[in-house]
Amino acid sequence: MKLLNHTFFSEHQVQFYETDLMGIVHHSNYLRFFEEARVAWAHSVGLIDYQVPSSASKFAVLETAVRHLAPSFFGDRLRIYVQARASGRARIEFGYEIVKANDNQKLILIATGKTEHVALDSKLQPQRRPQAMQDILEKQKWIEI
Amino acid sequence: MKLLNHTFFSEHQVQFYETDLMGIVHHSNYLRFFEEARVAWAHSVGLIDYQVPSSASKFAVLETAVRHLAPSFFGDRLRIYVQARASGRARIEFGYEIVKANDNQKLILIATGKTEHVALDSKLQPQRRPQAMQDILEKQKWIEI
Amino acid sequence: MKLLNHTFFSEHQVQFYETDLMGIVHHSNYLRFFEEARVAWAHSVGLIDYQVPSSASKFAVLETAVRHLAPSFFGDRLRIYVQARASGRARIEFGYEIVKANDNQKLILIATGKTEHVALDSKLQPQRRPQAMQDILEKQKWIEI
Amino acid sequence: MKLLNHTFFSEHQVQFYETDLMGIVHHSNYLRFFEEARVAWAHSVGLIDYQVPSSASKFAVLETAVRHLAPSFFGDRLRIYVQARASGRARIEFGYEIVKANDNQKLILIATGKTEHVALDSKLQPQRRPQAMQDILEKQKWIEI
Repeated sequence: MKLLNHTFFSEHQVQFYETDLMGIVHHSNYLRFFEEARVAWAHSVGLIDYQVPSSASKFAVLETAVRHLAPSFFGDRLRIYVQARASGRARIEFGYEIVKANDNQKLILIATGKTEHVALDSKLQPQRRPQAMQDILEKQKWIEI
Repeated sequence: MKLLNHTFFSEHQVQFYETDLMGIVHHSNYLRFFEEARVAWAHSVGLIDYQVPSSASKFAVLETAVRHLAPSFFGDRLRIYVQARASGRARIEFGYEIVKANDNQKLILIATGKTEHVALDSKLQPQRRPQAMQDILEKQKWIEI
Repeated sequence: MKLLNHTFFSEHQVQFYETDLMGIVHHSNYLRFFEEARVAWAHSVGLIDYQVPSSASKFAVLETAVRHLAPSFFGDRLRIYVQARASGRARIEFGYEIVKANDNQKLILIATGKTEHVALDSKLQPQRRPQAMQDILEKQKWIEI
Repeated sequence: MKLLNHTFFSEHQVQFYETDLMGIVHHSNYLRFFEEARVAWAHSVGLIDYQVPSSASKFAVLETAVRHLAPSFFGDRLRIYVQARASGRARIEFGYEIVKANDNQKLILIATGKTEHVALDSKLQPQRRPQAMQDILEKQKWIEI
């Protein structure tokens, strides 16, 4: 739980429809929880405008990776911590930690992960990071997890 | 928008992963939004205990119906109003209205719907409504929508 | 099981990710199974061209209704029977029956349902049924379920 | 496309409900496609019995990773190639390639990936690979991708 207190987070309460027959959250949903946090962060720094849905579709997902440390269950209140940085000449990398916050006395680390993205131009072709994005990323703090 | 100010509601911000290639929320998600509101209501009146996930699995879905009045989009902040009543000897009926709350000056009715459920016993067989549920339902107000 | 042997059907094997903590298929997925059958039917009669994804987005969902008769489980092989007809001046109505086909000796009716749709013009506004669609619908057989 | 002709595959036609507002398959679905292939493979070698759903819940997902090479679209017919091997003392590793098979003249590599799993005992605790699984894995061919 290294991102705790250091980065942006969004919250998600686990829904019944996100569980599977093992009685736990289906693993594919963690990529959705990452997206929720990534989008909320992008909105918070001005990179996504909810009034212009296409602003969110200007990024392609190139890679995802998730590590599962503990299961989460129906009703769990999750915090999805997210951090961002520039990667290579064109990519943006996000790092994540999902923490279970039901019982404040004892936080549990549910999952960690990372995703890599590239900005797309108006023809949906990959492009270098726009200057506005570059300026935002330079102000971000990155913690190795 | 008849349920406005009269019943319980939960809130849901439309996620990127809930949209489809038409650029709008895929219609199957409205049953999930209904479930979110129904579960939150059941939790609020004490019928579901998040610490006991099986408490939420004690209800079978018998019928669902949704009417779509307007599309909703990525980033929309929805309010899902929900009301409950006894139906027949064993069923519980829920009524719903989903309202878009982005712009307080102009609320938009997105969808209405209803679902019917039956309580299950420990062998997952349908049973009459338990007395605790009966007591709760008798206190609920119902508005025709 | 009135649609049996009378109408078009598509097949779907229940996936692990379609189950929930009750150990059964989550009810929201039935709208997705209906869509699979509806799209396959529309493709079979020439109303949808997979090479032109926008051809599938020319229909808005107006209403859905599902009746659940029996649960379905991981690994079940479902048949989704679908029929179509004109409804009112502008709408298209679809009727569905989902049958469990695991054991040919004993078919089980899992769910029935209906959905209503309207064709959209190039500005995504509702329009009357195009002539090509009208011609197709007139050739369809409809069985009350 | 190194797994082509060497390993087990399952097929999946992209559904409307699997697309997002970018008009492409939402990236979280690739973990579901991997699961479809993994489950079909496990069924084919006798590790999963569809009549005993709990047989499929005896594996926990520990890690997932996906690399996206090209987008896939509504109607695309995908082939998900999958291979399996033992990993460390207790884990099972799966490798995947998703190929688009619409046009046989020109196959397109959509995504590659891997997932790691561990077998669970009757108390849902991680355990060493059961002997039956060990025997099966020893017969599998593994190709670096």
